[in-house]
Amino acid sequence: MRIRLNLAYDGAAYRGWQVQPDARTVQGVLEGALARFYDVPEVRVIAAGRTDTGVHAVGQVAHFDAPSSRDLADLVRAMGALLPEDVRVWRARGVEADFHARYNARERVYAYRILDRPDLFRRGVAWWPHIPFDPDRAAELAGRLTGRRDWRAFSTRPDPDEETVCDLRRVEWRQAADGGWVVHFVADRFLRRMVRTLVGTLIDAAAGRLGEDELEELLASGRGRAGVPAPPQGLALLRVRYDNDEPEDRPQPSPWGESP
Amino acid sequence: MRIRLNLAYDGAAYRGWQVQPDARTVQGVLEGALARFYDVPEVRVIAAGRTDTGVHAVGQVAHFDAPSSRDLADLVRAMGALLPEDVRVWRARGVEADFHARYNARERVYAYRILDRPDLFRRGVAWWPHIPFDPDRAAELAGRLTGRRDWRAFSTRPDPDEETVCDLRRVEWRQAADGGWVVHFVADRFLRRMVRTLVGTLIDAAAGRLGEDELEELLASGRGRAGVPAPPQGLALLRVRYDNDEPEDRPQPSPWGESP
Repeated sequence: MRIRLNLAYDGAAYRGWQVQPDARTVQGVLEGALARFYDVPEVRVIAAGRTDTGVHAVGQVAHFDAPSSRDLADLVRAMGALLPEDVRVWRARGVEADFHARYNARERVYAYRILDRPDLFRRGVAWWPHIPFDPDRAAELAGRLTGRRDWRAFSTRPDPDEETVCDLRRVEWRQAADGGWVVHFVADRFLRRMVRTLVGTLIDAAAGRLGEDELEELLASGRGRAGVPAPPQGLALLRVRYDNDEPEDRPQPSPWGESP
Repeated sequence: MRIRLNLAYDGAAYRGWQVQPDARTVQGVLEGALARFYDVPEVRVIAAGRTDTGVHAVGQVAHFDAPSSRDLADLVRAMGALLPEDVRVWRARGVEADFHARYNARERVYAYRILDRPDLFRRGVAWWPHIPFDPDRAAELAGRLTGRRDWRAFSTRPDPDEETVCDLRRVEWRQAADGGWVVHFVADRFLRRMVRTLVGTLIDAAAGRLGEDELEELLASGRGRAGVPAPPQGLALLRVRYDNDEPEDRPQPSPWGESP
């Protein structure tokens, strides 16, 4: 039976999602916990988004093929006990054998949290840019980022044969109720470091370090220099949408707000 | 010149405030940073509240005698560079030579944050009690805790000659805007572990594990068994009040809300 998992994690202690030799990764600890639960040597899990080092997830989705038939409520409870406290499986359900967490995803929502002052108790989930910038200008520029285009200039080392066209459907810069801002990005797919590079570029432009012409050129032709990626701790994979979504797949409240 | 500091810290990485051999403490790192700034072998700092291991501070107050006359804006800036990112001096000003952060404090406000569900991104600043309890009952019982009495039963190992009478002036159990609850405690002084023991006892009573009679007896006579102290990560020293307070001494917003 193929099982779909909804999970959340605090990425601070992980070298990202994907299994790597000699590094603690979310996929690694999750596969280890599932192998213990099913009492098998190995379980392979595939996620919708391979989040980078230090990046969080509120509504990550993954799938795996269960090596034996066990109750799914037991599975969720066992994950609560077997996983470290910074990774949490919050839902599990059986899906069609051809469901694929990565290939079937219709839409991904990432969110980035920006602070208007240093904040000790949010430094793990947000970024304080350290330089003065104009938030109204950032909001205005954010709205102009949308579109289906080649986003290569906003990615880190795309593979030569990687598809670099993405359809960025919505970008919303909003004031957060508890201070600062949150930026939501909705697209069919994202390139590596794309959201963080977009945030870094937005802040550069809103701080006057990047001219409007330069930004336009960058967006239109993909030529020019995007900003330095904003740091990972402000970023979360907020939601992944599929055709088979159910109301219970809506993630719980988080510092990144509701997904658009 | 005697200097008064307002400071905040995330207590997670510290064995509390007070200097101890072979342990990282807030007092230790602050004294180290001040000694570097003034280029002297040692600076001694006295704080209003000697917070325990893992306990946070939003509005801690401390004083020290400056070994030389240096600009206070420079001091605050230098602390930003010399202190680790989980300790922040947010204000410094000169005070009368007889100002004493501990002895002159008129009132201390502690706050404890409680969650209504596990929350990955707040687990460092709040406690999820794991057992079902009645929040209305907790709110009602909280209001009955106030009073000037011997709080020995709610402390851990008070010294034999320690004054154990405290005037608990206000206890407010409030719904937090972003989920769960925050409990504010205002008193002239607190005993060691007193707030955490009060919170543990409140939750025990609101969960039906401690009878109303037992709680009344505990409050009236100090006899009986208080609850196990709630864990440190939910607790913060929110504010300390003095006769010489200025509007700028009001701490910035935090997960523990505004101090009553």
